[in-house]
Amino acid sequence: MTFLELAKKRFSSRKYLDKGIERSKLELLLEAARVAPSAVNKQPWLFYVFSSPEGLEKIRPCYHRDWFKTAPVVIVAVADHKAGWVRSSDGKDHCDIDLAIAIDHITLQATDLGLSTCWVCNFDVDACKKALQLSDSFEPVALIPVGYPAEEKESIRFETERKSLNTIVRWL
Amino acid sequence: MTFLELAKKRFSSRKYLDKGIERSKLELLLEAARVAPSAVNKQPWLFYVFSSPEGLEKIRPCYHRDWFKTAPVVIVAVADHKAGWVRSSDGKDHCDIDLAIAIDHITLQATDLGLSTCWVCNFDVDACKKALQLSDSFEPVALIPVGYPAEEKESIRFETERKSLNTIVRWL
Repeated sequence: MTFLELAKKRFSSRKYLDKGIERSKLELLLEAARVAPSAVNKQPWLFYVFSSPEGLEKIRPCYHRDWFKTAPVVIVAVADHKAGWVRSSDGKDHCDIDLAIAIDHITLQATDLGLSTCWVCNFDVDACKKALQLSDSFEPVALIPVGYPAEEKESIRFETERKSLNTIVRWL
Repeated sequence: MTFLELAKKRFSSRKYLDKGIERSKLELLLEAARVAPSAVNKQPWLFYVFSSPEGLEKIRPCYHRDWFKTAPVVIVAVADHKAGWVRSSDGKDHCDIDLAIAIDHITLQATDLGLSTCWVCNFDVDACKKALQLSDSFEPVALIPVGYPAEEKESIRFETERKSLNTIVRWL
């Protein structure tokens, strides 16, 4: 599979099979995140993997959707703002960028293994911080439910679901 | 090549061959960015591709490094903050996350095509805004030099250059 085929195969999965995920596959997802680049190689990230019944019980109230409860695993990607790189010229914190790269790696690695995921950004941040007992300098950036998909999506959808190249590219 | 092999093959390339890049390959890089996911599918991005002598002349002063001048192409990824998704609960702007996903796709697609790249974040933002004639709601997020690599890196480097899984993962 070429990279472009993989990128087009990934989709936001909102229905999972009632089937657990092999530990070896979960470790590959995390390894893909681990090798991700980050600004000045700071790696300002932590990944909380909720896969036990007790763990899932804790994280599910952070995002109230019925489909979310069907995911056998939820990974919470957390930024450590004290560890990240800040650009000195204007104080721009690069944690969001770093975390997004690592999470992108997780979703693409999952797709490569026949798993599916969804980026969840509109979750209850305060409830999540409490569930993870995070201090102020740590920020949960996204919840990533993971599972075997109960349905697939056609990659032809990119013809209509994305802006055209002409719209987003300037040649100079 | 598996996704993990691809992710490990990517490296920060700071020396490029004196060789142009085929237009068809550049279009594949941009297509990989185009299909990237973004919060609420807002796609708040523009990509400025500097590949002509006049274009490169304009962008090179935004990052003063000798190696940067060896890149035959520089892509500038620009966030359109008016177009992006903002979380209503706390006002968090998701443009950095969206742009990072798209840029990650560009760097991985480049690697898949035998090209190499480097994320440049510590550039002169004001000079770049001026060079691109951007209004205030547009922000250049990263410069991505692209070229054929003049040297490779061993993927074994991840054993020492990244934190261990034990350090960054919590199982719950």
